[in-house]
Amino acid sequence: MGLRFRPVEATFYDQFTEQANHLVTGARILAEMLADGADHEAVAQRMRDAEHGADETTHAIIRKVNSTFITPFDREDIYALASGLDDVMDMMDEVVDMILLYEVRLMPAEVSGQVELLQRCADLTAAAMPNLRSMQSLEEYWIEINRLENAGDKNHRRILANIFSGDYKTIEVLKLKDIVEALEDAIDAFEKVANTVEQIAVKES
Amino acid sequence: MGLRFRPVEATFYDQFTEQANHLVTGARILAEMLADGADHEAVAQRMRDAEHGADETTHAIIRKVNSTFITPFDREDIYALASGLDDVMDMMDEVVDMILLYEVRLMPAEVSGQVELLQRCADLTAAAMPNLRSMQSLEEYWIEINRLENAGDKNHRRILANIFSGDYKTIEVLKLKDIVEALEDAIDAFEKVANTVEQIAVKES
Amino acid sequence: MGLRFRPVEATFYDQFTEQANHLVTGARILAEMLADGADHEAVAQRMRDAEHGADETTHAIIRKVNSTFITPFDREDIYALASGLDDVMDMMDEVVDMILLYEVRLMPAEVSGQVELLQRCADLTAAAMPNLRSMQSLEEYWIEINRLENAGDKNHRRILANIFSGDYKTIEVLKLKDIVEALEDAIDAFEKVANTVEQIAVKES
Repeated sequence: MGLRFRPVEATFYDQFTEQANHLVTGARILAEMLADGADHEAVAQRMRDAEHGADETTHAIIRKVNSTFITPFDREDIYALASGLDDVMDMMDEVVDMILLYEVRLMPAEVSGQVELLQRCADLTAAAMPNLRSMQSLEEYWIEINRLENAGDKNHRRILANIFSGDYKTIEVLKLKDIVEALEDAIDAFEKVANTVEQIAVKES
Repeated sequence: MGLRFRPVEATFYDQFTEQANHLVTGARILAEMLADGADHEAVAQRMRDAEHGADETTHAIIRKVNSTFITPFDREDIYALASGLDDVMDMMDEVVDMILLYEVRLMPAEVSGQVELLQRCADLTAAAMPNLRSMQSLEEYWIEINRLENAGDKNHRRILANIFSGDYKTIEVLKLKDIVEALEDAIDAFEKVANTVEQIAVKES
Repeated sequence: MGLRFRPVEATFYDQFTEQANHLVTGARILAEMLADGADHEAVAQRMRDAEHGADETTHAIIRKVNSTFITPFDREDIYALASGLDDVMDMMDEVVDMILLYEVRLMPAEVSGQVELLQRCADLTAAAMPNLRSMQSLEEYWIEINRLENAGDKNHRRILANIFSGDYKTIEVLKLKDIVEALEDAIDAFEKVANTVEQIAVKES
């Protein structure tokens, strides 16, 4: 019933969910980029399209927050959440772009673990966004994202140790380091989104 | 006539214009750094002076916003615009500093395209700042900056592909990658300024 | 006597002091990491513990600011100061972690100068935090931090020139550059804290 009288607020939840769904798509495309025999050019093009789609949703949220008098939570938190979600997409796009540009074909096996982790983070984030309305079940979400980020950090360190083990030529180390650090940044960006959600939930409770 | 009764607000526009004019100077010095036979030490010293000048303008704006009761637009937007303009200068300064420090003499030809693009962004930004008062003609400015940033991104990718083509020694790749990424960051920083201006314009309209 | 009537505000000063004391510990552990014959695994573990301790203090401040009605200074400034102090710790932790991960044993001698400088910044910051209550003696603090940051910047440039002098293998350049840039970032992070304190002091004066 509350909804009937606050139709404007409803759309923010829909838009955040839409933004998070773009991340689910982006994480899937990133996984395809790593598959054996992937057509890098074609996959990277699809990633660029997905990133543009996410951009449009972000701009729609910013436009709305700038033109709406009453917002469901603090204006600055809406900005922070929208730009946080947008950052994740930018970083996943960057990873795909680097793989294309550096013409990297061989990567340490543990890299796929980081990508699976990103997919899991995207799924959890997309499932959590609609709960912003009721502010229910959000704690499990941010605790799980923090747990995944810790696991990703451990995996990241194993990958770096592998890259610097002496098995790779220095020019390959340079490329791989860039790629795995961008993966790590994308996971961190999911954690930042979860922290923003936590902050919103604490304020509203 | 409005001006007569709001003299305090006027100075913010002057100061933002001053800040943007520092960027015009900075972009020109950066172009000189890339010229054949440039005296790297001397040019870098002039860049440092220009950067200090820009810093002083930034601090003057921050001091004013902290001590002024009525500001022409939201306090946080004034901070964002001032620090955004300051970031551009820092990044151009960093590029010049890296060229000096790494003793780089040979760069991919496309690098000069990025610097021309930075000069164009600086000119457009300096021309746009006085329009913050009337909020007129700003849309053309931010659309053009976004177009230039897209062109810069395409050029950046061509440069990276060139650097990683195998024609450069790995130690040179390491240096050149740093420099061209800093150039790309400077262009992105201009786009961020344009986004801030867009946000201010949307709020005020 | 003021304290009796504003017990809530008091704790923020205590917490900021606690946060800064974590930085003193962190800077000391970082210095131990660079000592000859240091047990890298053991020292890095202690750094991780120190970083967790700092994290807990940061979260306690964020929780408090979100649940407190009257704060001693602007809510956004409390966030900025808490996250600024937290950033310093993260960066010092990152340096230690890189030294462990990259198995770096030999570093340019000037690196220890940067670490001494970080220790000095930490001591000054810890001494300044209690003065936030009276807003006295803060100017000397931020002027001295800015002076140290300038000295650190000069030293950083000497180290980079050394690293790129041709004496190091490219793979070592890659590792050392990462480490010394992280040291520089940590010093910059101290300066950012000092700038936040300056901003708070100007507003409150």
